This record gives sequence, structure tokens and C-alpha cells, in this order.
Amino acid sequence: MHVYHDQLEVRSRGKGLYEITDDVQSKIDKCSIRNGTVTVFVQHTSCSIVIMENADPTARRDLEEFFERLVPERTSYFTHDAEGSDDMPSHIRMVLTRTSETVPIADGKMQLGTWQGIFLFEHRGAPHRRKLFLAIIGE
Amino acid sequence: MHVYHDQLEVRSRGKGLYEITDDVQSKIDKCSIRNGTVTVFVQHTSCSIVIMENADPTARRDLEEFFERLVPERTSYFTHDAEGSDDMPSHIRMVLTRTSETVPIADGKMQLGTWQGIFLFEHRGAPHRRKLFLAIIGE
Amino acid sequence: MHVYHDQLEVRSRGKGLYEITDDVQSKIDKCSIRNGTVTVFVQHTSCSIVIMENADPTARRDLEEFFERLVPERTSYFTHDAEGSDDMPSHIRMVLTRTSETVPIADGKMQLGTWQGIFLFEHRGAPHRRKLFLAIIGE
Repeated sequence: MHVYHDQLEVRSRGKGLYEITDDVQSKIDKCSIRNGTVTVFVQHTSCSIVIMENADPTARRDLEEFFERLVPERTSYFTHDAEGSDDMPSHIRMVLTRTSETVPIADGKMQLGTWQGIFLFEHRGAPHRRKLFLAIIGE
Repeated sequence: MHVYHDQLEVRSRGKGLYEITDDVQSKIDKCSIRNGTVTVFVQHTSCSIVIMENADPTARRDLEEFFERLVPERTSYFTHDAEGSDDMPSHIRMVLTRTSETVPIADGKMQLGTWQGIFLFEHRGAPHRRKLFLAIIGE
Repeated sequence: MHVYHDQLEVRSRGKGLYEITDDVQSKIDKCSIRNGTVTVFVQHTSCSIVIMENADPTARRDLEEFFERLVPERTSYFTHDAEGSDDMPSHIRMVLTRTSETVPIADGKMQLGTWQGIFLFEHRGAPHRRKLFLAIIGE
């Protein structure tokens, strides 16, 4: 049994879903762990990690539109807006989704279903460099 | 320290919450790990794994009704509807909840609170066979 | 590789976010594990564990207000109200957030980003004693 740590940087180009499945699998391929779990953890509070349908881009666009409407910019009662109108919505959208995903690994491969992809979900309007910390535990 | 992998299939009869607490505990009972964690991971993007109140069925019905209203079928701006009007809502409801739950194990038992149960939350209207992958890590 | 279990009790004073980052780190400091993960798991279905912005209190107040409006007390179709008007909203707010967070540990420290804190998110109006179970796995 071992622990293997690694990091990933994802450059977002503003709001939306950015698939990172292959980047995570590449990190697993680099280490000797064949069976266990990987925890993909994002070190920010204005973007999320989610597992989502990865085949049809229209599903991602509908998801983004849903979150735009559920937590609108310029909501009248928001007071935390030091970084702009997308500041508070980005924190709420993160709390409504996830800071990390933990995925089982068997025979060196993440055990994702056929249509599952891992995504960075960027909630800020401007491009950002996002830091992810990976903890792979197993044997 | 060891890793133990197992799988579960849950047959849903359409939308709703299906308790799987005993099924997960049975898998833990089968392996030699007494202390650690179990990650219950669902390999689909149109259903979820959630921990929820397991005593009163009315709580589950109110939860289901809330999600019906929060992410309604036939939402006018949804474009991803290849599999029907419950297609896009099922993905959004999954993103708003969870793909996996990780539960501590002590003395061979999941350390759930008195009223906590683990549920498959089916978001599609038709019956489905859902595949779950379990990763148990510990000693 | 080892597993270390511990428990925390958090006394809430009604609805709101209570930071527990230092309490969790103190438990990690007590054990010999330097690299791995900690799973912070709350043993209740009417409060949550979330990672959230920990610098500006206005961000937390806006978040609390958002959840008050998204899942209002006295929603007409709720039937599960044995414990009062905050009963059903508390379960739904928990399902929309998280029962646990898993955070990587490196060199004995949780690898949180600069602005990330771990919070108990209390959804009930009255003060409660909340039990948390911590599973630290690593080497």
C-alpha cells in the first residue's frame, strides 16, 4: 500500500466545463499503484470538480445555462461582490457541486462508466489557472 | 493495509430513492478489512448516490418532488433531449447531488449516524439496471 | 500505511456555517500519518460538511440566504414536518451539498487552497451537538 501525490494545472478560458479525464489517468499511469482510489481535489472556491456526461456537448451547455439561471449574477441581495458580479455566484455554484471526486482504480484504470468524464467546472468569467491536487492511494 | 473491490447492481423501477445500505454493508462483511473507508461509486451520469434520512418515507417523497420542481422536465431551453424529456434533468440532478459517497468503517461497520442511509437516487423515468463499484481501503 | 480514526463534536448555535479547519488539522497533528487523505464525515442528515471561502463573512451570509430562498421553510407541498418547518428544508439542503469532504494530506498538512476552509453547515434553527467521524488513511 502506498500514497502517491501529484498536481495538475488547468487553464480555463472562462465559465464552462473542461474535461480532465485523460490528464488524471496519465498521472495514474505514471505511478505504480494498480488498485485503489484517486481523489481529484481542486484548491479553489470558485470552480468545481464534477463527473458528467462526456459524449454530447449540448448536455454541458444545458448544464451551464441551468446554473446561470439557478444562481444569477446581479442577484439583488448578494453583498459579496468585491471581485465582480460573478464572485458570489461562483462560490454558491461550487457549494452546490463538489470540491473533489474520488474514483476507484482497478488494474491501473479509473473505473468510470462509459459516458462518465471528470470535468473542471469553471464558474468565473475570466480565464484562470486552476490548481488540482491528486491523492492516489492503493497497492 | 489492503484494497478490496466489489460491484453491486441495483435495479430501479423509475425515479426515486432506493436504499442500498444493507447491500453495501454485506460487501464489507465479505472482506477482511475492519477499519478504513468504503467509496460507493455509481458508474452512470443519470442517477446519483446520496446519504439521506432513512426513517420516514415522506421525507424521500418531498425530496423527489423538490427535484422535480427545481429541474423540471420540458424546460424550454434544454436542447439535449435525445433520450426524452427526463434526459437533461437527470444529468443536472446528478451534478447537484453526488456520484459517490465515502463512508468510514470501524470494527467492520460503516459509521453511519442513526438516521443515515445510503441511497441510489434514480433520475430516469424508466426502470434501469445501475452498476455500482465499491472500493474498500483499510486494514 | 495506517488508518487512524477520530471524532469531533461541533456545537452549532442554529443555522449557519461553522469553520472546523483547525479542529480537523489538530486531529491530523495528533496521529503519525504524514501523507494520505482525511475524510471528514458528519453523522447527521440535517447538516452538511462543505469546503467554502473562509476569508469574507459576507460570502457566507449570502450563501445562507441563497439556501433559505432555494429551499424555503413552509413550502406548501412538504409533508415531512414532524420536527418543524425547518425539518424538510434541512434534509434537502444536505442532499444539495455534502455529507463528507475528502482532503489530501502532504507533509502532515491538509492541502487546502489559500481561501479554502472546511465548514459544518447547520440547517436546523435550534442549537445542536453535531458528531463528525474522521478517517485518516496514509503513511
